[in-house]
Order: sequence, then structure tokens, then C-alpha cells
Amino acid sequence: MGNVSRRAMLGATGGLIAGGLLKTQVDALTMANDALGQQTAQVGGRLGGPTSVLGERAPGEQPRRVMGAPAVTSSSRSPIEQLRGIITPADLHFERHHAGVPAIDPDRYELVIHGMVDRPMTFTLDDLKRFPSESRICFVECSGNGGAAYNRNAPADRAPSQIDGLFSTSEWSGVLVSTLLREVGISRDATWLLAEGSDAALMARSIPVEKAMDDAMIAYGQNGEAIRPEQGYPARLLLPGWEGNAQVKWIRRLEASDRPSMTREETSKYTDPLADGTSRQFSLVMDAKSTITFPAFPYQLPERGWWEIRGLAWSGRGRITGVEITTDGGRSWMPAQLQEPVLSKCATRFRHVWNWDGSEALLMSRATDETGYVQPDLETLIAARGEGTAYHYNTIRPWRVQSDGRVFFGQGEGA
Amino acid sequence: MGNVSRRAMLGATGGLIAGGLLKTQVDALTMANDALGQQTAQVGGRLGGPTSVLGERAPGEQPRRVMGAPAVTSSSRSPIEQLRGIITPADLHFERHHAGVPAIDPDRYELVIHGMVDRPMTFTLDDLKRFPSESRICFVECSGNGGAAYNRNAPADRAPSQIDGLFSTSEWSGVLVSTLLREVGISRDATWLLAEGSDAALMARSIPVEKAMDDAMIAYGQNGEAIRPEQGYPARLLLPGWEGNAQVKWIRRLEASDRPSMTREETSKYTDPLADGTSRQFSLVMDAKSTITFPAFPYQLPERGWWEIRGLAWSGRGRITGVEITTDGGRSWMPAQLQEPVLSKCATRFRHVWNWDGSEALLMSRATDETGYVQPDLETLIAARGEGTAYHYNTIRPWRVQSDGRVFFGQGEGA
Repeated sequence: MGNVSRRAMLGATGGLIAGGLLKTQVDALTMANDALGQQTAQVGGRLGGPTSVLGERAPGEQPRRVMGAPAVTSSSRSPIEQLRGIITPADLHFERHHAGVPAIDPDRYELVIHGMVDRPMTFTLDDLKRFPSESRICFVECSGNGGAAYNRNAPADRAPSQIDGLFSTSEWSGVLVSTLLREVGISRDATWLLAEGSDAALMARSIPVEKAMDDAMIAYGQNGEAIRPEQGYPARLLLPGWEGNAQVKWIRRLEASDRPSMTREETSKYTDPLADGTSRQFSLVMDAKSTITFPAFPYQLPERGWWEIRGLAWSGRGRITGVEITTDGGRSWMPAQLQEPVLSKCATRFRHVWNWDGSEALLMSRATDETGYVQPDLETLIAARGEGTAYHYNTIRPWRVQSDGRVFFGQGEGA
Repeated sequence: MGNVSRRAMLGATGGLIAGGLLKTQVDALTMANDALGQQTAQVGGRLGGPTSVLGERAPGEQPRRVMGAPAVTSSSRSPIEQLRGIITPADLHFERHHAGVPAIDPDRYELVIHGMVDRPMTFTLDDLKRFPSESRICFVECSGNGGAAYNRNAPADRAPSQIDGLFSTSEWSGVLVSTLLREVGISRDATWLLAEGSDAALMARSIPVEKAMDDAMIAYGQNGEAIRPEQGYPARLLLPGWEGNAQVKWIRRLEASDRPSMTREETSKYTDPLADGTSRQFSLVMDAKSTITFPAFPYQLPERGWWEIRGLAWSGRGRITGVEITTDGGRSWMPAQLQEPVLSKCATRFRHVWNWDGSEALLMSRATDETGYVQPDLETLIAARGEGTAYHYNTIRPWRVQSDGRVFFGQGEGA
């Protein structure tokens, strides 16, 4: 087909952009007839494969999580630049764990809720599943996601997954923590919960009761089925919109208290040192962020003309209300289209049609959420936080398109 | 934990039901301490498994599609009673094909659009992916789904998947057909499209241009990744809310015309013979339907008390606006809770808390959609259609709970 026409792009997007290349139509009817003849010969009336109890991917479609160094590592990333829509297949959901993935026998699994409660209780997996079951489509994101972007001299040969692949979206199902806290009779004086996992690290975090009574969930389902081992099987804490580390996987215990427990993961780790020398603790919400997934490294635009800039935006504080796109490094910004449904604390797809004229371009996206918060640029965030922070990197991500069509991360020189 | 308390169920559902059993609390603190001790011993500080490029299900969680007879068959069903939420994992999406699953080389794939158009054209897969990309969460359902329920003497030993498992929900991504029809310049006189697949059957259906210009899509993505071979890889027609058969998979051709093509699949098949001796043709929309997935055969309720009745509702005409539940065979109906988001032409989860007193009960659900259409009962539909129809079975599904807790399909005697 060659280039995409102005007609199609304008028709689909309401005519925001004028100009551009027209479709070159060469012997289209002959092409059509040739194609049908080829296809008929290819199909040839042979019966295809049978039904199966479990589907498999097409041979040429084998997406994989992106691993770190070949040595022992403790995270893998979703290949976000290969994905469409907002749902992440469960086997491609990013993983991050501190002591490996434990193998837990679901028949022996128990969740204990104790501390400042009227009736300390244990819940088996069947117990949890018997309670009213809620589902919610929302993102989970590692607090350290985007670290590769928080650097004035970030390497340019980075794909979106290498920057923002510690981010995935699922439909999670489970029982609301508020339901369980009512069951055990949490004390009115309790203000914090200690959530503890049963991995070898006994990963533990302090969670405000206010969040627990709001939308926190003990999740046992992911995209319809049982959650996967690396996501906390058989049950995990889900805190919509909050940093992943606090959403304790393989959860075995909630202890109600009147103070935070000051675990390792909220004292030496998962705090934000600030530019003024102090540190910010319990910065649990993931602020609004967006990232362009196409075009991006290592893609090379093969020709000038209409291209659709695509990406993902999300906020831990609610709905995304807008994403703006610049193709000239920030001199002008245009509103992107948001794909419905736009859900709270969930990935939102955005797209924007762009007519590339073949010259150098600097693409960026900027998200705004329902609180009015606007995704900051790198210099603004460094001024507020300093360069020593290791979490909550929600700065604007720049992608530089060279005149040869190659795309690199950052504003600097390409590799 | 034993029985679920009135406290938890009322707290979670707003107190629709009074009465019931209270939680028996036996040495709960001791239980809690024992459980923690056991778990610590079980965990023992051993490092868990490493990260992986592709996740696997937990050993004890191996959902499977439900197959028909062990001989060659052409459909498999989603295990809907095992699933939570609305999303169906791609490898558990039901399948239905008429000549097997073809193996199509995506590099040789082409879609031809011709007939009453200004510019007949062929589109490669890359061409299709370059156009503005839309995503939509919606159901796909075989027109013959629910056949096991359209029978006054339906077998009682049928699970929900055996009745309604030719139904699944995905996030589909692709290009709107309207975008492609603008590209080729469809004639104002064209009213129908012939859609033809490249399976060995060359499955073909006539689609009104009105639907094609509304929300039809050429889909190449499913739940974020490439659609699976049995769902039409590399591209299929998606007609949100319409019967599955018309959503031609492995699509290779759209031919614009001023009349329907009267293919085998819309003359001898996929028509509805009516009670008056005439037949209804092109009944393409799937009317509102709901089905209880829990409790249902072969489950046996182990005890009296609070249980959550759970199920799925959907309509091809838009949003579900309500689902009513009866537990007394239709003498009284109560509104079920609908899980957000309630999306148009998409599965909607419903649930209703029920205090089972141990006596026989007859459970039914009844869906209403945004057009005001109400799911009919069996006698109403048989009166309108006669007993000879083979498609569009959207009658109310009854589930009978025996006093021993066993659950059977239908209003008659259990097996």
C-alpha cells in the first residue's frame, strides 16, 4: 500500500493536521486480483489445525519479557513497545522480587489478620474467595520504573521497555481489604497495617488504614484466572495507584497498629532523598506519567508521511484527563486522543497523528490527571529532588527522530 | 475461618439481606499464631525461583478449554465458571472454526478491498498496523451459544461452560473498517460488504455497510499481543455485539456491493426458523443475556449461610443496565450489583449475596440492556421461535439447588 493517505488519517482523527503526502495508487485492481490469486493458491482448500485445550501463540509472535543482566537478577520488564491497548497478558506482566518467587501450596495458604483488632483471624484461600469478589482494571508499577530516564546524560539506545517496562495493567480480582477488616473488627485507634509477604525476604511494608479501607484488595485473580506465581500466587495485596513494592505479594499477614513499622523497605529503601538534604518517606502514590511507545528506539521510520504517535499514560491519583504531544521539542503542544475507557488508576492509551517531513524532530508527551497535576520535565524534578533519588521518576520522556528516521531516547546525540 | 459472617456480607453489599449465621470464633488468636509459625517453617528463608522471560501458571492452576466429543471437533469452550472478572486470557478464548485453523504467514498476508469502491486496494499487515489504531474491550460469542439451555428437558448435569462457554471477552486492537473504506473510497451506493476468510472453507458473510462504518474493526491485537491463530491470526473482522460467525477470521477480502451475497452461512445456516414457519435472516445482533457461573453444576454448597451468586451479563445492543436475581424460582426478584466498568457490548460481572437456608432453591438471573430489552424466559422464546431454531438462545438460565447443596441446571430433577 505504501504511504498512508491524508484521507484516512484525517478521517480517523477529525482533521487536526493539514498537508502531507497523497496515496500513490498503482494498478490497484491488478494488485487486488494478484493478491487473491496468491492467497487462494496458498490456502488450497487444505484443512487447518484442530481445536485445542489451550491456545498457543503464532510461531512468529513470541513476545518475551525483557531481562536485565544475564547474571541472577530480580526483575523482568513488560515489552510495552510490542503491546497494544492497555491489558498486559499475565505471562508478560513485569516482575520484581527481592528473594525469588516462592512456591506456595494453595491448600496450606493462610492470611492472618491480627494486632489491634477485636477478633484476630486466619483466612484460607477458599475463605478469601467466598467473600464478595471485586474486580478492577488497574496498573501496577515498580517504584523505580523510569530510572533510565532520570539522567541528563541517559543512554540513547534504550527502548521504551528498558525505561518504563516495570509497568503492567491487569484486571485484578479479589476481596476488598475493608471487608476483611470489618470481619476482624479493626480498632478505631488503628491507623497503620503491617503487610508481610511469605517470600524468603519476608518483604514487609506499612500501609495506612485509610488506604486499606478505601480501595485496597487481597487479589487472587489476574485477567480472569489465578494470579501467576511471580505476581504473588496465591494472593497479594493490591493498592491501586500506589508503588508496586508496597503491594506485598504472597501476603501472609496484616497486623493492625497505631504507627508505621519502619521496615527496611520504607527506611533504607523506597524513600526519596530531596535536593535540600532531607528525605521524603511514604511517598506511596505514583504520580501522573506518560511515555511514547511508538516511534521509539530501536525503530527506524522508513519514510516521510503520516505516522501515529502512540503511548501510555497513567496516574495513581485517578483518571488521566489529557495527554499533550509535541513534535518540536516543546515549542508547540497538541492534545492527543485518549482511547476509551479512561479508567481511574489505570493505563490509558493515547495517540496522535503526525506528518513527518523528514527533518529532525523531538517527540514528547505530557500527561495531566484529574487532580490537575501535570507531568514535570526532567529539570523541574531534579530541582525539587536532586539527582540522588532512586524512585518515582515521572519526568517527561523525550524521543529524538533523526533525519534518517532512526529514533533515540533523550534530547542528546544518538548512539 | 468457616462460615462468612453477616457483618462482612452486609458491610460489602449495603445490607440488602437480614438474618443469617454469625461467625463462629474459636481460639482465633491461637489459630493466627499457629498459622504464622507454620508459614515461617514452610518458607524457611530459602530463595525462591528466578525471573523468567515468560511467566507460567502455578502448578495447581491449569485451566483448560472445554472440548466437545473426543473425535474431530470444531469448537472448544472457555471455562467461564473458573474465571473471574471479564477478561478472558487469550489461550482460554473459545474457538469455533469450520475448516480448522489455517497457518498464515504474516509476511504474505494481504487484505483486499474491492467491488464498489473508487480505488481497489490491498493492505499488508504492516499497512493495517500503520493506520490509526483503536482498542476496544468487547465480547465475542458464537451464535449457537446457549443451545444446551434451549430445551424444556435440558440435561441437568451441565456446567456453565458447557452451556455458555462459546463466549469470551478480550481487549481487541486494530484499524476501524470505516478508516479503510474511506481509504478505498467506497461508493455511496454500496450497502453490503462480502467478508471472506482465508480458511479452507473460505468462510464468507454479508455485512451491512452501516455496521462497517459504525464500529467494525480489522483486529490484529488481542489482550495487548497479536491475536491467536484460532482467533484469526494475523487479522480478523470484529463486529462488536454481533454473532461470532459474521466476524470473519483470517480475513482476506472485503467486497463492496449493493446487495447481500447470500452465502451458505446466511442461507442454510445462521438463520432462525420461527414458530410461524417463516425464517429470520441476518439476525446478527446478540440480544441481552445473563448466566450464573456460581453456584452451578457441578458445585455442591458445603453448608448453609452466606454465598455470593456470581455471573456474567452482556448485550450486543449496548450496555447492561441491570441484572435481577431470583432465588425462589421467580416469585421475587432482587437487583444484583454490577461491577464497574460497565462497557457497551461487553461482559459485565454481576453478583448478589444470598443467605441459603438449606432448603431447595431455584436461582435465575435476568438481564436488561440500555434499549430496555429484557432477557426472556424459555417459554416466551419458544412461543416466538418454535423449537427448531439453532441460534440466538438468550433465555433465562435456571439453576436448582438441592437441599444437599448440589446444584443442577434447569428446573427439573437432578441427575
